[in-house]
Amino acid sequence: MDRRTFNRRMLIGGATAATAGVTSLSLGAVEAGSAENPLPTAPAGGTVRHLTLYAEKLANDQIGYGFEKGKATVPGPLIELTEGDTLHIEFENTTDVDVSLHVHGVDYDVANDGTRLNRSHVEPGGTRTYTWRTHAPGRRKDGSWRPGSAGYWHYHDHVVGTDHGTGGIRKGLYGPLVVRREGDILPDKTITIVFNDMTINNKAAKDSPNFEATVGDRVEVVMITHGEYYHTFHIHGHRWADNRTGLLTGPDDPSRVIDTKICGPADSFGFQVVAGEHVGAGAWMYHCHVQSHSDMGMAGLFLVAKPDGTVPGYEPHHPAADTMGTAKGGADAKAGAGAGHAH
Amino acid sequence: MDRRTFNRRMLIGGATAATAGVTSLSLGAVEAGSAENPLPTAPAGGTVRHLTLYAEKLANDQIGYGFEKGKATVPGPLIELTEGDTLHIEFENTTDVDVSLHVHGVDYDVANDGTRLNRSHVEPGGTRTYTWRTHAPGRRKDGSWRPGSAGYWHYHDHVVGTDHGTGGIRKGLYGPLVVRREGDILPDKTITIVFNDMTINNKAAKDSPNFEATVGDRVEVVMITHGEYYHTFHIHGHRWADNRTGLLTGPDDPSRVIDTKICGPADSFGFQVVAGEHVGAGAWMYHCHVQSHSDMGMAGLFLVAKPDGTVPGYEPHHPAADTMGTAKGGADAKAGAGAGHAH
Amino acid sequence: MDRRTFNRRMLIGGATAATAGVTSLSLGAVEAGSAENPLPTAPAGGTVRHLTLYAEKLANDQIGYGFEKGKATVPGPLIELTEGDTLHIEFENTTDVDVSLHVHGVDYDVANDGTRLNRSHVEPGGTRTYTWRTHAPGRRKDGSWRPGSAGYWHYHDHVVGTDHGTGGIRKGLYGPLVVRREGDILPDKTITIVFNDMTINNKAAKDSPNFEATVGDRVEVVMITHGEYYHTFHIHGHRWADNRTGLLTGPDDPSRVIDTKICGPADSFGFQVVAGEHVGAGAWMYHCHVQSHSDMGMAGLFLVAKPDGTVPGYEPHHPAADTMGTAKGGADAKAGAGAGHAH
Repeated sequence: MDRRTFNRRMLIGGATAATAGVTSLSLGAVEAGSAENPLPTAPAGGTVRHLTLYAEKLANDQIGYGFEKGKATVPGPLIELTEGDTLHIEFENTTDVDVSLHVHGVDYDVANDGTRLNRSHVEPGGTRTYTWRTHAPGRRKDGSWRPGSAGYWHYHDHVVGTDHGTGGIRKGLYGPLVVRREGDILPDKTITIVFNDMTINNKAAKDSPNFEATVGDRVEVVMITHGEYYHTFHIHGHRWADNRTGLLTGPDDPSRVIDTKICGPADSFGFQVVAGEHVGAGAWMYHCHVQSHSDMGMAGLFLVAKPDGTVPGYEPHHPAADTMGTAKGGADAKAGAGAGHAH
Repeated sequence: MDRRTFNRRMLIGGATAATAGVTSLSLGAVEAGSAENPLPTAPAGGTVRHLTLYAEKLANDQIGYGFEKGKATVPGPLIELTEGDTLHIEFENTTDVDVSLHVHGVDYDVANDGTRLNRSHVEPGGTRTYTWRTHAPGRRKDGSWRPGSAGYWHYHDHVVGTDHGTGGIRKGLYGPLVVRREGDILPDKTITIVFNDMTINNKAAKDSPNFEATVGDRVEVVMITHGEYYHTFHIHGHRWADNRTGLLTGPDDPSRVIDTKICGPADSFGFQVVAGEHVGAGAWMYHCHVQSHSDMGMAGLFLVAKPDGTVPGYEPHHPAADTMGTAKGGADAKAGAGAGHAH
Repeated sequence: MDRRTFNRRMLIGGATAATAGVTSLSLGAVEAGSAENPLPTAPAGGTVRHLTLYAEKLANDQIGYGFEKGKATVPGPLIELTEGDTLHIEFENTTDVDVSLHVHGVDYDVANDGTRLNRSHVEPGGTRTYTWRTHAPGRRKDGSWRPGSAGYWHYHDHVVGTDHGTGGIRKGLYGPLVVRREGDILPDKTITIVFNDMTINNKAAKDSPNFEATVGDRVEVVMITHGEYYHTFHIHGHRWADNRTGLLTGPDDPSRVIDTKICGPADSFGFQVVAGEHVGAGAWMYHCHVQSHSDMGMAGLFLVAKPDGTVPGYEPHHPAADTMGTAKGGADAKAGAGAGHAH
């Protein structure tokens, strides 16, 4: 199922993501189909949505979030909102330790803080509804400008291991949240890359994730950092604007265009690239540019295929790919090809 | 004394901060009282001011700056200027080691550099006048645009311990400097948060500072980093624009809105939040998001009270608050309630 | 030879930098001489250029890039392009290990990636032509805005020592690339500062480079980080805008003006300052502001001379200068005075 089909079904099927295997929730995305502007953009927000989210134990002592029981992933599923939306999350903790859901960027009162301080965590077997609200930008009564909620945000546990969730984050309790503004360009797919300590999406070295696209796809990257270390995110052959959307607003936008960005724990940013634009298909590395980190395997591939599906010059089992710790078999290489979210 | 009263008195009382207990110097701030724009904004600069500043030994082997003898604090007092202002600082070193005053962002010739290299430090018992100048933006004769001095800057020692002031900074010789542009929105209060090595404002773990506000207060945060480590500054329930003022200039400002920012030694930025806007009153954590740092206590509270003075859900002596290293008794909790500067 | 003379000669002499001692390649720079706008700006790009580049062993187990055999430097020579230009680099590896040329920011297909993964490195004694393309900003057919290639980029080895070039970068295989936009203001000179592990331009402590200018010179700084550590770049008495060019576009540009910036490996940015503007001539320190880094000597001087050539207060052999690890003899102090590039 591709993203647009998925989005349409969400609109028809109602507010709860009850479909088997759902790892992404997109609220209200529709397509502008006019010939003058073929790019789909985010419609106006303002909808009240409901969602279920589970915390559950995974293999290898990991813990993940998922929309369905038995389907938790690391990172947790992508949640997308548009400014003005409200989201009620019925959260169930199926693990044997206290877990919480703390979110960045959006509006929530202290009862939804997801911290022990504010008694907003969930005991083993317990349930709690977390409510996140968002708002559009506008002018306050005093004349000042109030920013909107749009941004590339994220959610994570705040109580496992320590009162800052150090254990929960290490084990995988984190995920991406994208809040769009009405009119924002919608991507063809969204991938999430989390530099969590010395892993990418809790995968180390040779297991680090690859992501797939076809030349011309508008691919959105949500980049989140967690844990203990600083990193520099770098991708070969592609770049983005260092602003809200990662896309320049036009010729007057003074933002720096970059392909490398320093980031520390809980920093997050996002951007869209047109896969292979100006550079063509190929196996494009993305990696942490801290030299010891990349040498230890904090590197993966952005596999941009030609329309016929081939990636020029790319041999998954080539020793050169192996030694850089990013070689993938066919099954793994498809990890990034999902409906708007890869893990 | 609240900030506005304080500012008025500064204007009436003259240029030298001679009032007992003064920990903030605001030059020229006035209020625009019209109904159309009730927000006070910074007036035009251009004033020549004089100030006395002392370096003195404090308890626990610390050293601080203060406007009066016996009143030094860590961080040092807030200094506010408006572009165009000139500030002459009569600096007295009451300690038994060489001390200096080095400033970021504003204009000074090498005789005011505050470095040993430029022989602009002060011997024990000595006095020196440091002059800082500022300028408004404008167009140069060659047609290029010259930026103004406005920014969230800071000052610090550059000679204690090493020729880069490593010992002086560690002991507390640093403070905030805000340079405003004519028309910039003035806050109701300003708080200073300095991540200095593994401390906040040289307070470790359970002693880390809390800051108080009432819902609707326009609170300005000056965030400075010092020492050896990188950090990620994060605050719960509030966010800011990653630009000059921390406030979006309007709908066309492409700046990212964030609630987490990586920072390294001598980085500084500032922003204003409307306390509790969209989220309500409560005990909102701010902390370094490097997991080991927060776990070791680099966390405090932004206590946003309801108009009746209560902070919903907040019990200063609750064990949960204690374990996160941020619990405060009544006296300490008031630390952030001063006239525009908390330490 | 000053920069403008050099640029003129480049235009007359053709596309290949064949002049002895050339350490900078400027493609197409011309001067706008009108009285209304005396500042020279970048002309339109679109030229196809050719260049030779050599990798060769240097003293002290270093390796450098150079435009001519026997002339390699660390950092490698400055390469300047204007959006629309194409550059073909005939690269020869004169060393006894595999070397490559990987570039940030510009357009190249996988055959020009400079990685072992894409078999685009060069064996000892081998030659390979790398092609870099650039493009101006514009609107895509789908209506979205496509950013241009302009930026302060860099190139480096990606294969020596490890598949991420950790050994090559450590030894000196890196250099600056500036891509300008038509209309960008041209500097009088460009200097390159690379924080590579605990060195500046592979020079440690007392050998760290100084740079020279005269009051009023428009000096461009290309700041690159490499290696393992994060740093905070700081310069005394000068500041810049945190945007694409380091220059505010005008009064509506919301970018922060800064004098300190955190940076990690492979981050790069650039800016122009008018030497001594508002602060006068003098010995202005630039340094990493991580305290242990500056204390260990990650500091140099920006020596801004008066028109008569003197630097007020600066004595090269003064003990204060020595102890900060930045003292230079006359010969070394001239390192920064070259035609647009210092090393």
